[in-house]
Amino acid sequence: MFNFKITHTSGRARTGILETSRGKIKTPIFMPVGTLGTVKALSPEELLNCGAQIILGNTYHLYLRPGCDVIERFAGLHKFMHWDKPILTDSGGFQVFSLAKLSKISEQGYSFQSHLDGSQHLLTPEKSVEIQLCLNSDIVMCLDQCLPYPATDDETREAMLLTTRWAERCKETWAAKTGPQNALFGIVQGGMNKDLRYLSAQALTALDFSGHAIGGLSVGEPKDVMLEIADHTLPELPNEKPKYIMGVGKPEDLVELVAMGADMFDCVMPTRNARNGQLFTRYGTINIANSRHKQDTQPIDTGCSCYTCCHYSRAYLRHLYMAKELLAYRLNTLHNIHYYLDLMRSMREAIRKNRFEGFKQNFYNDYLNEKT
Amino acid sequence: MFNFKITHTSGRARTGILETSRGKIKTPIFMPVGTLGTVKALSPEELLNCGAQIILGNTYHLYLRPGCDVIERFAGLHKFMHWDKPILTDSGGFQVFSLAKLSKISEQGYSFQSHLDGSQHLLTPEKSVEIQLCLNSDIVMCLDQCLPYPATDDETREAMLLTTRWAERCKETWAAKTGPQNALFGIVQGGMNKDLRYLSAQALTALDFSGHAIGGLSVGEPKDVMLEIADHTLPELPNEKPKYIMGVGKPEDLVELVAMGADMFDCVMPTRNARNGQLFTRYGTINIANSRHKQDTQPIDTGCSCYTCCHYSRAYLRHLYMAKELLAYRLNTLHNIHYYLDLMRSMREAIRKNRFEGFKQNFYNDYLNEKT
Repeated sequence: MFNFKITHTSGRARTGILETSRGKIKTPIFMPVGTLGTVKALSPEELLNCGAQIILGNTYHLYLRPGCDVIERFAGLHKFMHWDKPILTDSGGFQVFSLAKLSKISEQGYSFQSHLDGSQHLLTPEKSVEIQLCLNSDIVMCLDQCLPYPATDDETREAMLLTTRWAERCKETWAAKTGPQNALFGIVQGGMNKDLRYLSAQALTALDFSGHAIGGLSVGEPKDVMLEIADHTLPELPNEKPKYIMGVGKPEDLVELVAMGADMFDCVMPTRNARNGQLFTRYGTINIANSRHKQDTQPIDTGCSCYTCCHYSRAYLRHLYMAKELLAYRLNTLHNIHYYLDLMRSMREAIRKNRFEGFKQNFYNDYLNEKT
Repeated sequence: MFNFKITHTSGRARTGILETSRGKIKTPIFMPVGTLGTVKALSPEELLNCGAQIILGNTYHLYLRPGCDVIERFAGLHKFMHWDKPILTDSGGFQVFSLAKLSKISEQGYSFQSHLDGSQHLLTPEKSVEIQLCLNSDIVMCLDQCLPYPATDDETREAMLLTTRWAERCKETWAAKTGPQNALFGIVQGGMNKDLRYLSAQALTALDFSGHAIGGLSVGEPKDVMLEIADHTLPELPNEKPKYIMGVGKPEDLVELVAMGADMFDCVMPTRNARNGQLFTRYGTINIANSRHKQDTQPIDTGCSCYTCCHYSRAYLRHLYMAKELLAYRLNTLHNIHYYLDLMRSMREAIRKNRFEGFKQNFYNDYLNEKT
């Protein structure tokens, strides 16, 4: 089962219900990243309490460790990690590109060496889908070719065309090996070239995926270029299917992209930054290591209802962080994930009330006023 | 308020109720160690769910970081760390001895350099009590002189006598600066010398503390010596007051010492070993890193009711541990703390039913059979 229904719009922004066999997801939504079968430092119950509806797992990481032989014994990632809500898995392409020692990219797929032990592997479109089906992913992503920024138009065109051919192979494997409980999304590539983005969107739309992602953003390009490409590409994708911007971004990016009609996001920023002491508030980010928090009995954000803000002061969080206590990473992560999910909740509410433009103005009026 | 009442006995083992202004504690009890204002990796709610009734804070660590100026703003450690049950604080003596660069020990106290920044400090009996009162400790410990093992009889006698004189000074400071909500315990020293242990117990008993600890055990002596000294010293302390064995120990040590009439324990073993992958079960310890757990869908202990065992397999825990995921330390710690507190609960039940000898036999029949 996989359905998507738009429920409200406000300008180009929209709310929707994404129905999967593991439950309904209210969009627009942010998906916390659980690279290795755990959203770093949090329990599944904490994620639920923060409002997480779906999380992301990384195919490359889980394929290498613990491996499909282990996860198979649990009939997928959900039972293995004690999370029974939906999971989206990436294809592994971006991680091969960014983490592994890439030996060769060919029509067949990626040849690479594991970043863990140097072992040789071949990741083809077929293999990527098979691994994701072994993980029993609710939303499987097609393998795509990622490029560094900047890239030439020729490189970008070749990568986009290869991504399209791989998308066809992914779809064939998916159609042969699974039922409707595991949806398949295509990924638009085309770098910072609008014509190529258009062609990619057209080609993928023709393949009739359950949803579409825009990949290859937030790879080093200026912020306005990222937003311009998203602004150009989102309308080229069919409105009746979910639109997912991969690997983005900062809170203000999410606000801008939701305004353009994006439905789904993932990013390591709330989790990774939490572990580096950077915490999000309505008024911008704070660095908890800053000595100005040393004796501060107030929470991170007095208006925040997360577990961390309900029970702990900045002074305590700073103390834990300076002492490198394990609880620091957990309380910080919990707050940041809550912040991101609460931001999405607020945006959904504003869209339902057809007040998204006003929401955006309020957001910017508050944001970026906090000093670190 | 501080009261102790023995409720049942089974041989020399006993259950009791220790009444503090922050609630009642059922003894015998194990106190998880929260060195820096956090039991490493766990939340206060998790501790409560495991059955923790009282935790331990380290005076030396908290004095250096975050410092009394910070904790004062929260009127003590409880509110600072979001734990409203009782807290026992050690005196700092053992940490100065084991962690700091000790410059000088004199009649006055310990001169030492911080292990963090090399700053010079003087820890006197008066100062130790004052810091513990700033932490608003429910059970304050007297400053004592710790010795390495082995030590000569002369050294041991001098240290024991100094500890006794310091105990008098601690009591004076305590009497002048606090009401009955912060109890004060004396610490018996005397190394591995039974005569000195006897003299120390006599001298401290005369000072009429709220309870007594036996310090200076588990410092490198053979196990049978430790048990022999405890066996000799416990009966020298007044039965109507709680008896606390400091810094001990393994599960089998707790069983032996409860049999001898001990009421309170603390040890870093369940928390520290958890972070090193060593997990306690009814059948002995397992090392979760062992490859035999790689595909094991069973929990750590099928008979355990902790959160970790209810929801996660050995395969998942091994995966998290091998990947150094933060959740590994938390799930492992939670299990080990639950194991220790459940062991204490079982012992209390066996004593209530006057079946402690049978309990002990069953414990040893199961224990130490597991392979790592």
